[in-house]
Amino acid sequence: MKNIIVQKYGGSSVADSEKLKKVAQKIAKRIKQQFKLVVVVSAMGKTTDNLIKLSKEISINPAPRELDMLLTTGEQVSASLLAIALNEIGVKCKSLNAFQAEILTTGDFNQARIKNLKVKKIKDLLKEDDAVIITGFQGITEEGEITTLGRGGSDTSAVALAAAMSAKCEIYSDVAGIFTTDPRIHPGAKKLKYITYDEMLEMSSLGAKVLHSRSVEIAKKFGITIYCGSTFSEEEGSYVMKKNIEQPVVSGLSVMDNQTQVTLSNLPLDYTLVHQIFEKVAKEGLNVDMISIISNGGLNISFTVIEDKKAHVSKALSQILKGMKDLNIDYNSGYSKISIVGIGMKSSSGVAAKYFKALAGIPVKLVTTSEIKISCLVEEKYKEKAVKALINTFEL
Amino acid sequence: MKNIIVQKYGGSSVADSEKLKKVAQKIAKRIKQQFKLVVVVSAMGKTTDNLIKLSKEISINPAPRELDMLLTTGEQVSASLLAIALNEIGVKCKSLNAFQAEILTTGDFNQARIKNLKVKKIKDLLKEDDAVIITGFQGITEEGEITTLGRGGSDTSAVALAAAMSAKCEIYSDVAGIFTTDPRIHPGAKKLKYITYDEMLEMSSLGAKVLHSRSVEIAKKFGITIYCGSTFSEEEGSYVMKKNIEQPVVSGLSVMDNQTQVTLSNLPLDYTLVHQIFEKVAKEGLNVDMISIISNGGLNISFTVIEDKKAHVSKALSQILKGMKDLNIDYNSGYSKISIVGIGMKSSSGVAAKYFKALAGIPVKLVTTSEIKISCLVEEKYKEKAVKALINTFEL
Repeated sequence: MKNIIVQKYGGSSVADSEKLKKVAQKIAKRIKQQFKLVVVVSAMGKTTDNLIKLSKEISINPAPRELDMLLTTGEQVSASLLAIALNEIGVKCKSLNAFQAEILTTGDFNQARIKNLKVKKIKDLLKEDDAVIITGFQGITEEGEITTLGRGGSDTSAVALAAAMSAKCEIYSDVAGIFTTDPRIHPGAKKLKYITYDEMLEMSSLGAKVLHSRSVEIAKKFGITIYCGSTFSEEEGSYVMKKNIEQPVVSGLSVMDNQTQVTLSNLPLDYTLVHQIFEKVAKEGLNVDMISIISNGGLNISFTVIEDKKAHVSKALSQILKGMKDLNIDYNSGYSKISIVGIGMKSSSGVAAKYFKALAGIPVKLVTTSEIKISCLVEEKYKEKAVKALINTFEL
Repeated sequence: MKNIIVQKYGGSSVADSEKLKKVAQKIAKRIKQQFKLVVVVSAMGKTTDNLIKLSKEISINPAPRELDMLLTTGEQVSASLLAIALNEIGVKCKSLNAFQAEILTTGDFNQARIKNLKVKKIKDLLKEDDAVIITGFQGITEEGEITTLGRGGSDTSAVALAAAMSAKCEIYSDVAGIFTTDPRIHPGAKKLKYITYDEMLEMSSLGAKVLHSRSVEIAKKFGITIYCGSTFSEEEGSYVMKKNIEQPVVSGLSVMDNQTQVTLSNLPLDYTLVHQIFEKVAKEGLNVDMISIISNGGLNISFTVIEDKKAHVSKALSQILKGMKDLNIDYNSGYSKISIVGIGMKSSSGVAAKYFKALAGIPVKLVTTSEIKISCLVEEKYKEKAVKALINTFEL
């Protein structure tokens, strides 16, 4: 059989019938180059947002199982329309949804994880057909329940399929690759030709919207090189792979707004309590981000959450901490988290020094670091200044 | 277990979130009366039309398999939203699509027929839950291909489920029952309290949009009484059942516009040719309706098709009839077909006489009859007059 490529097209690439026809042409061109294609699609344009909005008109907190039943229709619409467009121009193909393609996941509605991919049906179809179109984002449990992989999960569908089929993986969107920082906000952002899995993981978890982080984890685990390119331009994109051939020290910068810093002062020096606090917060489904713990006789704990979860955190904490004396809880909102990421930081000394030099004069509220990342929290009014200083210092 | 009722709600009953909430209230009320419910839903409002329109932007003749993949999303949206609405008001329920409910059909895309319904899963769910919401209109083949039952097929889904579960069947729409003729066109139309399967079948096939004719066939086969009522009013509806308790001679009138009469004159007296003509026309997917054949030396054949298929018919005929001399083909458009239906016609004499007396003075182009139906074709300008005359004569 011919070599197989797994392609994925994002929502803005399939937003209307004209774009679907163009994507069909792009696929047909690739098939003429003697490949067989497995094409994963997201829902058209704002479909998922609109379906969520519709469900919220009925229930503020829609039943998770039913929400997945609802949202998975979006990808079935785009997959079948793309198959119609391909059939129309003579490309033999069929669309498959998650149950037909047997994309088995865990039963965690709204955030399921792929457990197993039986690609036999896809391979069988490709003996006759030139392409198979697969609904991204969705899966199915062994009991036949329909699940979704979380927002952006179509990337994960594509990479998992590429891993299962030992195929190349190409992810197309309206952004022509991976940039040092968001090109829509900082027009001077540089496109990276290469980026490692670890750098990409840090970038993804920092809110860079290029790739779903789970997709990068799978690519790393199975050694799949991901090509990220533009759907509608021929501009060369970026490769996410094991080694960064160019190896710059710092390869990217990302910004997340709407951060709230929660600071608990004068806690008793009891690490069981620390465990209880974070366990409670996790149980409430809250994602705690930057964490700093300092003990000086008592304990001071500081962490960040996204702003609209503040009331939720406050409620969770008050349940755990009720009755404690002298305890002080501060909430400071309107912060931004700015991070730099680079695999080169591991081996390059002085990055932290350069980082703090760049930020001199900006009041930094909290700093956390990993082997390949430094993040700081600043008031939003300092954001612009901090970002510019870091872009200049690290030539991003 | 409590008694089970199968309900079906049409597209206009679930057209938006407010209506879905009202339908949920109606279902909850029925559950309080100690029933368990299986609820079949159509797609919301104009969803199916809009999806077809979208597919036609891409292909004039979309691949039938992919069209079914596309259209089935409509019912999955309404089913999951209704389940969300029910969960929101404390009704325990889950939605199931055709593959989850195992609604097995033939593989005829766009017009599949139900072969088998495994209702074990539905029954299992109803041990715990109060209701199960099922996507109407759709099925699945044994190979896992997604099919649809044809426009209006949700009625068939509901009646087949009722038959499989030995349950009562209630069909709700924006019309409060079955009328002697279309109440939107003839405000004086009378609502029938009872109508037999055979009468309903004739009415359905004549374009009365109350019930999908296949659903009536299944109801007849399994002796399921169908109640047709209004979703949003408490007005008493109509029962489709074996015997018409009231037994009027003529129970309904229906009108179909956009008829074209095709007349072939001076054909050789060759019945193989007749067979070939109608076989060719059927192969082209054309529905021929009223047929009249008269032999007077040669053969004269006259039949009707709907107007927008005229070019299609013309093409099919020219392939069969090329090279024949003296042959004359006439196309006359802009006709309406008016039919009266009634189980009482079987045993009541003089119906035809009354019928033609009512139509005295109106040029009738073609007449066909069955045991319980008389249809005639008239120019559209005479339609109003003919309908009024028949309504008065038969007190419809």
